[in-house]
Amino acid sequence: MFAEIDPPQRLLMGPGPVNAYPRVLRAMSADLLGQFDPEMTGYMNETMALYRGVFQTQNRWTFVIDGTARAGIEAALVSLTEPGAKVLIVRSGRFGLLLTEICERLGADYVTVDADWGQVVPFDRIAQAARAHRPQVIAAIHGDTSTTMAQPLDSLGELCREIGALSYVDATATLGGMSVPVDAWGADIVTAGLQKCLGGPSGSAPITISDRAAEFIFARRHTEKGIRASDATDGNRARIGSNYFDLAMIMDYWSEKRLNHHTEATSMLYAARECARIALQEGLEARFARHELAGRAVVAGARAIGLAVYGDDAHRMTNVTGIFIPDAIDGETIRRRMREDFEIEIGTAFGPLAGKIWRIGAMGYNARKHKVLITLGALEGCLRAEGFAARSGVDAALEMYEASHA
Amino acid sequence: MFAEIDPPQRLLMGPGPVNAYPRVLRAMSADLLGQFDPEMTGYMNETMALYRGVFQTQNRWTFVIDGTARAGIEAALVSLTEPGAKVLIVRSGRFGLLLTEICERLGADYVTVDADWGQVVPFDRIAQAARAHRPQVIAAIHGDTSTTMAQPLDSLGELCREIGALSYVDATATLGGMSVPVDAWGADIVTAGLQKCLGGPSGSAPITISDRAAEFIFARRHTEKGIRASDATDGNRARIGSNYFDLAMIMDYWSEKRLNHHTEATSMLYAARECARIALQEGLEARFARHELAGRAVVAGARAIGLAVYGDDAHRMTNVTGIFIPDAIDGETIRRRMREDFEIEIGTAFGPLAGKIWRIGAMGYNARKHKVLITLGALEGCLRAEGFAARSGVDAALEMYEASHA
Repeated sequence: MFAEIDPPQRLLMGPGPVNAYPRVLRAMSADLLGQFDPEMTGYMNETMALYRGVFQTQNRWTFVIDGTARAGIEAALVSLTEPGAKVLIVRSGRFGLLLTEICERLGADYVTVDADWGQVVPFDRIAQAARAHRPQVIAAIHGDTSTTMAQPLDSLGELCREIGALSYVDATATLGGMSVPVDAWGADIVTAGLQKCLGGPSGSAPITISDRAAEFIFARRHTEKGIRASDATDGNRARIGSNYFDLAMIMDYWSEKRLNHHTEATSMLYAARECARIALQEGLEARFARHELAGRAVVAGARAIGLAVYGDDAHRMTNVTGIFIPDAIDGETIRRRMREDFEIEIGTAFGPLAGKIWRIGAMGYNARKHKVLITLGALEGCLRAEGFAARSGVDAALEMYEASHA
Repeated sequence: MFAEIDPPQRLLMGPGPVNAYPRVLRAMSADLLGQFDPEMTGYMNETMALYRGVFQTQNRWTFVIDGTARAGIEAALVSLTEPGAKVLIVRSGRFGLLLTEICERLGADYVTVDADWGQVVPFDRIAQAARAHRPQVIAAIHGDTSTTMAQPLDSLGELCREIGALSYVDATATLGGMSVPVDAWGADIVTAGLQKCLGGPSGSAPITISDRAAEFIFARRHTEKGIRASDATDGNRARIGSNYFDLAMIMDYWSEKRLNHHTEATSMLYAARECARIALQEGLEARFARHELAGRAVVAGARAIGLAVYGDDAHRMTNVTGIFIPDAIDGETIRRRMREDFEIEIGTAFGPLAGKIWRIGAMGYNARKHKVLITLGALEGCLRAEGFAARSGVDAALEMYEASHA
């Protein structure tokens, strides 16, 4: 028999998961409720209201999907995309590739507009592609942690209205850390996860859906047998290709209808609710500023150490930074030293960047001065121990914090 | 701003979710780990080993899906069922209907072998249908909580070998409460959830996969771009129609390859691991006996009160009991009284049974003498308060416990 859970106290400064807020962990220790008990549906309604705040939206349909961030992505795409529908995918990293991958499996007829990893796609290229291809759906990643770049999406809604498309945005890595102004963008579906800037565990995916998108999805409604009312009528559009990710049924579950679908993941709901409470109690502007300062301090510190920072400065995510692994240094040796000598995790990289960059995140509960400084100090020490002539990064980061009076 | 999570202390005696073991809630309060940290992958491997015990199997591929029990069902079916494949579905309740529903969405060519709600399908009828239709997959529900019946599945594997099929069994409502002898059945994929007899929160779905089924699924492997090795080769069978539920990629994530797919839901993993530890520490036989006695006590108590018990005595699930709502009694009024006066939840019913039966569960942490007795006493009281001449059910249940020396 294995022993009880007792993980080491490790500082998680990678691209997520990061350490959870203690308040979130405590919220999960509350006992369960029946799924239709009034207190449970009350918590569900409160969670909806809280995430409207976090997503900066008035969307009625704002709730959580029971799965990881990737579950939110698939729920959005399978519900928005009828087989054969044309989807325009904005790609410049691994998670853009994931959108393609999911669309292939859904049988969508997708086209892409691409930028090299480390860049973003200029909005006029997106607009040009949209006008040329007239897609039914435009899908994009807000912050792609694989490249540490944030895609500008300001005019997304306007473009979609012009060509009659709906839009999907994956904000997994940015929600609660960078501004995700859903209504100002005019985005139709935006999804996220808890394990990045919201400072909770993976396993619950906040989602918000515009009335426009909800109307489309309800036209695909096909309530399952066993729970459907005898007088239920189905929508006239193609049935959604997944039961678990059928947003029409999930919205019916989160509505006053309370039509049973899955059994809501109660502990994860408690976690999601507490993440949102923490975010709104801090205040979104204060929160974005905290992440932005932490990100600038990581960049300044890395450069002061003598390391090159990856990607385009103008579009850098504030909460995760790519740092080139110097020649003659083995990236995994440094990561192992960071973990074993300092109990700090920094991130590796995927695909074309594997072995070329580390990724240092400062997200949620960890986007704080002392954690950034400790991480930079540890990185310097590990680099010197491996023979790289690292200068001090701590001083530069500390100066940045002191100059900001944070 | 809403207040912190502080649910009432309610006894959940419905068909699930039930109250979680305090140890499970405490396990979830441990902080997170990086998803590839050695301690995290260690916990993943331990969870695999523990669920081999719970599932009574040697299957290497035994792990958890990040979602509710329904996510496990869909992952199994989408991975086992190629478009156009013939699936034989064994149906006698709501969850049998759910299998049909999912197969429709997958584009499977399914046939069914049915029994009326409250009955099970005799195995010779399953065998007859299998020989006539030669399906690629046979899918069944072990315990369908909608009807409270447990489907016998002893010869499932033998039948599948005879006709060259793979099998899927949903054991959501029985795993950890009734015997689910995966290897003795010869079942190929079996899935479950935590929120019934395992006594944890919904949101993690244990799954076990035979080598035979794994081989089939790996023949459908198509590793996503962005993480695939340059020399990766894909399987020669049809690509799985979901990314999130692609068991080939999920197995690669849980294997020594550790190929990143989703971000493992760490807190739910901690919960799943603790549920299994508790089950194996108690011992499966002791646990099945505890559920069986609790179920018999509920049945005896209900009958002593003067209520009729729903369904076929020979195939009753031990952990959930259907009880007819007497004429002239409104079922929802009793449920509301149970909740408001006694802080006890009992279950309503679905479809053809809605308004006709209550469902009383005694599962996991709640399959205990005092909880059964308290529930029966409360039910008597509520029935008398509403004018039904209820006799004592407590006495009969207590006698049963005393006779068993439990």
